[in-house]
Amino acid sequence: MEKVNLKINIIKKEIISIFKKFGLSNDHALISANALINAELVGAYGHGLSRLKMYCDRIKKKVINPKPNIKIKKISQSISHIDANDSIGFVAADIAIKKAIQNAKKTGIGMVAVKNSGHYGLSGYYAEQAVKKNLITMIYTNAPPAVAPHGALKSLFGTNPICFGTPTGSKIPFILDTSISMINRGKIRVAARNNQKIPEGVALDKFGKPTVNARKALEGVQLPIAGFRGSGLAWMVDILSGVLTGGNHAGRVKDPFDDFSGPQNIGHLFITFKTNLFVKNYNNRINNNIKTIKRLPKIKGVKEIMYPGQNKYKRYKINSKKDIKISEMIKKDLKNLKI
Amino acid sequence: MEKVNLKINIIKKEIISIFKKFGLSNDHALISANALINAELVGAYGHGLSRLKMYCDRIKKKVINPKPNIKIKKISQSISHIDANDSIGFVAADIAIKKAIQNAKKTGIGMVAVKNSGHYGLSGYYAEQAVKKNLITMIYTNAPPAVAPHGALKSLFGTNPICFGTPTGSKIPFILDTSISMINRGKIRVAARNNQKIPEGVALDKFGKPTVNARKALEGVQLPIAGFRGSGLAWMVDILSGVLTGGNHAGRVKDPFDDFSGPQNIGHLFITFKTNLFVKNYNNRINNNIKTIKRLPKIKGVKEIMYPGQNKYKRYKINSKKDIKISEMIKKDLKNLKI
Repeated sequence: MEKVNLKINIIKKEIISIFKKFGLSNDHALISANALINAELVGAYGHGLSRLKMYCDRIKKKVINPKPNIKIKKISQSISHIDANDSIGFVAADIAIKKAIQNAKKTGIGMVAVKNSGHYGLSGYYAEQAVKKNLITMIYTNAPPAVAPHGALKSLFGTNPICFGTPTGSKIPFILDTSISMINRGKIRVAARNNQKIPEGVALDKFGKPTVNARKALEGVQLPIAGFRGSGLAWMVDILSGVLTGGNHAGRVKDPFDDFSGPQNIGHLFITFKTNLFVKNYNNRINNNIKTIKRLPKIKGVKEIMYPGQNKYKRYKINSKKDIKISEMIKKDLKNLKI
Repeated sequence: MEKVNLKINIIKKEIISIFKKFGLSNDHALISANALINAELVGAYGHGLSRLKMYCDRIKKKVINPKPNIKIKKISQSISHIDANDSIGFVAADIAIKKAIQNAKKTGIGMVAVKNSGHYGLSGYYAEQAVKKNLITMIYTNAPPAVAPHGALKSLFGTNPICFGTPTGSKIPFILDTSISMINRGKIRVAARNNQKIPEGVALDKFGKPTVNARKALEGVQLPIAGFRGSGLAWMVDILSGVLTGGNHAGRVKDPFDDFSGPQNIGHLFITFKTNLFVKNYNNRINNNIKTIKRLPKIKGVKEIMYPGQNKYKRYKINSKKDIKISEMIKKDLKNLKI
């Protein structure tokens, strides 16, 4: 596919002006543009510019509210509840993580639940904000059906990421941001298009039989990591981010690309706490932890044992010095959305 | 192996008197006996009576303190730090979960970190206590090296369980208590003894090559679930329960059976919070969540989609009406420990 090079600041301005055209405030357009650009820079293209048109379509169809009246309810000094009023997910999550940081700074621990939100991109992006403020964070969000519960023949859980971030005593944070799906649906789509096989054990066909045939997998379901255990983790995320918060759950989050029949009402949960609650030398301790693990003997071919977030940080550093490469399709999106 | 039937209350009295003989107080002996019996009743035999001799050996070798001076430090209304003074793990965990329940009842959210503790059995056992008080809970503990970090040729992470519990609006709680190891070391030992193969993808030989040979796996390492992702989850648990709390971490937790050179200094983290912080009808919501998932079409041969904790609850109900079956070896342990 042909790629086009664009300066980061130029494309950011374009995105901001598009979001403003669709009714977002200056602030909200900036928050959303930053999140999309960040996804591109860390190489998470599925959460980047490829979604811009979808967000604009949802605003146009009135299932994202461009001028939300976001309400923050104080439950306690530590705990807050946000009704995002169908805002674009980026804005809800940005307000939520900032509130969670504030609460943790004040009381040691912060918990912020969000309802009536939408897809917010990468959990790790918000985790980084808390870690920069020297906090540990755990973040949960649900998502549209993609993965079948263990034993089921139909997708219900989202890719429901489990996200955990902590300062490391070095400039590269520890950011675990892991889907509970064995495989990304996008990868199955690409394999089907190219007549390639998919790995064993990642999907079932429509009859519930394991398959390596990508086309059959698309008609069937994706599997959770580690069978019953991964299914349990996905269920936990649905409970924490959906049942607890007042958001949609049990498969009721709408697909943002395909279903414009109403807002998504995704729920998120942000937990933050101080690193020095129980020890004075947390940074030394975690630094020692990481060093000890990195010094282990390695499997042949492995140069370095990486901690979660390390590779992403490297990609970000490299990519933020270069122009952004976008596909012709995204270039067309940008052009059409500007009109 | 020959099994012997024993009445539950008789064997419980025996365990209590053994622990008291080894210097535990009445209370601590009762707490420990209850935890061991519970493990037997839920069918987690690796955490049950098979460990009794180990605990007594560690007390005798002065690496478990039978008369600990356990200190609870108040960090805030929500947060407490416990120095368990090398107590038997059951006692430290029992105090910790009760404190975490108290804190959550008072402020909405509780967080209790424990250091200088030992192996406490099943995380789910403590989760059940919080759930009975209508709280949601997340529990983390580390453990002796069993699993290799992704890319490493040596075990370092424990089986580091991730535990999550919530009320369900029915009498059977949702208790996810999942190891991040693909396989239990005990199962590899049994396979090696019986010349059986182990499943693909659960272990590496000592050269770092995948193996289905149980003997070679014993010389090699166990793998985390889901590769880099499971390795990241295990790492997260080590940070939350070890680095954060002041406990041992990075592979320094000693094996309780093999290493009597000092106390284990295991760390635990207990997080608890109220179900009704953000919604008024949590029990209805989770009940609806579970019902929706159970109604999904099922894979051939699957009778019911089970939620985590359901099977364990059933086993407990059935087993608590019967006598406990113990092996000749455990019977011998009991006899020897009583002398």
